[in-house]
Amino acid sequence: MNNTMDTIFAVSLLNGRYADCIDGDELEAWPGFFTEDARYVVTSYENHAAGSEMGVIYCDSKGMLQDRVLGLREANVYERQRYRHIMSMPSRAMEDEHGNVRATTSFAVYRIMRDGRTSLFVTGCYLDTLRPDAGGELKIASRIVVCDSSVFDTLLAIPL
Amino acid sequence: MNNTMDTIFAVSLLNGRYADCIDGDELEAWPGFFTEDARYVVTSYENHAAGSEMGVIYCDSKGMLQDRVLGLREANVYERQRYRHIMSMPSRAMEDEHGNVRATTSFAVYRIMRDGRTSLFVTGCYLDTLRPDAGGELKIASRIVVCDSSVFDTLLAIPL
Amino acid sequence: MNNTMDTIFAVSLLNGRYADCIDGDELEAWPGFFTEDARYVVTSYENHAAGSEMGVIYCDSKGMLQDRVLGLREANVYERQRYRHIMSMPSRAMEDEHGNVRATTSFAVYRIMRDGRTSLFVTGCYLDTLRPDAGGELKIASRIVVCDSSVFDTLLAIPL
Repeated sequence: MNNTMDTIFAVSLLNGRYADCIDGDELEAWPGFFTEDARYVVTSYENHAAGSEMGVIYCDSKGMLQDRVLGLREANVYERQRYRHIMSMPSRAMEDEHGNVRATTSFAVYRIMRDGRTSLFVTGCYLDTLRPDAGGELKIASRIVVCDSSVFDTLLAIPL
Repeated sequence: MNNTMDTIFAVSLLNGRYADCIDGDELEAWPGFFTEDARYVVTSYENHAAGSEMGVIYCDSKGMLQDRVLGLREANVYERQRYRHIMSMPSRAMEDEHGNVRATTSFAVYRIMRDGRTSLFVTGCYLDTLRPDAGGELKIASRIVVCDSSVFDTLLAIPL
Repeated sequence: MNNTMDTIFAVSLLNGRYADCIDGDELEAWPGFFTEDARYVVTSYENHAAGSEMGVIYCDSKGMLQDRVLGLREANVYERQRYRHIMSMPSRAMEDEHGNVRATTSFAVYRIMRDGRTSLFVTGCYLDTLRPDAGGELKIASRIVVCDSSVFDTLLAIPL
């Protein structure tokens, strides 16, 4: 297991496409970044540090992510705001002997309101387990989104 | 056409030097990142999504970029403020058979006033077409700067 | 001397681990990123541009960095706030014939208060000289942290 350049690079590319998907309001494509049995958790730094698996959001299948997108569309959340992810390079991307990758990446997400006002929404990091699919492409088997703040508006919980 | 590591890396390095040039107030070197016939457009997300070629700024030659720098120097804009670009890795950098590269990169730009106050200026993404010059170095043939907000002060439109 | 992909990559990985160390409140590990005779300076853009070696913080040995961590622990600074570093890729990472690397990296640091409020703390860049240790791992021989603003609270000067 090692932070090879190839692995860091592959995770960086995955993160970039993931961000473009959300920031470009192509939400229907978002579940496609995950495995069928994926776990997607949004939690706070404090909860995570305390060892809790609980989160503001807890999904444990791609189907739940698809339902989430439908809910966001019904609520017309993207009519009112957009997002912009800025990410550091992964600080860690370790591949094990089965090709699974464990990675960590810091992010800042900005929120852009309809009238153009832009502000910092939340900072945090992704703690990921990634798995290659049949075609060799990395998919997210588990993404724990550890948010530095726990006070952002959960009703508008866009995918992070 | 593929997101090879070499191509992503080359674009990342270009972006880094480009940002250092602007943030370090070496504006006279800024047009040097472009081809002679370069197009440089600053536009809003809404305009771009609507398919408009119009922008807050529209230049279609290196000469226009040089004129722009002269104008900024006359207006003493850099006496009053500086900038800091933070960029994600390119999410895409596809090279075609002629060596031209199409790339996308998200950015956040901060503005630092003379008294030290620092604030978010604008977030957005670069949509680029890059072309190798005679020496093999990538130059910007087209950079569309898609700004998430359209309300920033256009009179002070520093290169983004 | 050249911006090779391997060198840029090595610096990016070092920066990522460095940020995780500070942001994850593992301060005791922070001096381990430096050589024994390391210089660590936090200064302002204005001071640095004026050629001054003075800084808000000036350390010239690993021991001074260790003392600094002890001081921060006594002051319980991390009880009151945390940090999140977001970094661009290094814009420059030149290796000389002795394996020393000179690198430049832009950063934004956010501060998260105990009640969850998150705000931009400071932007700037690292000007580094890195040196491989006996095992070939890059260590920081000199890190000049050039802060865009000089008005942040120096009493709470967490490692940047």
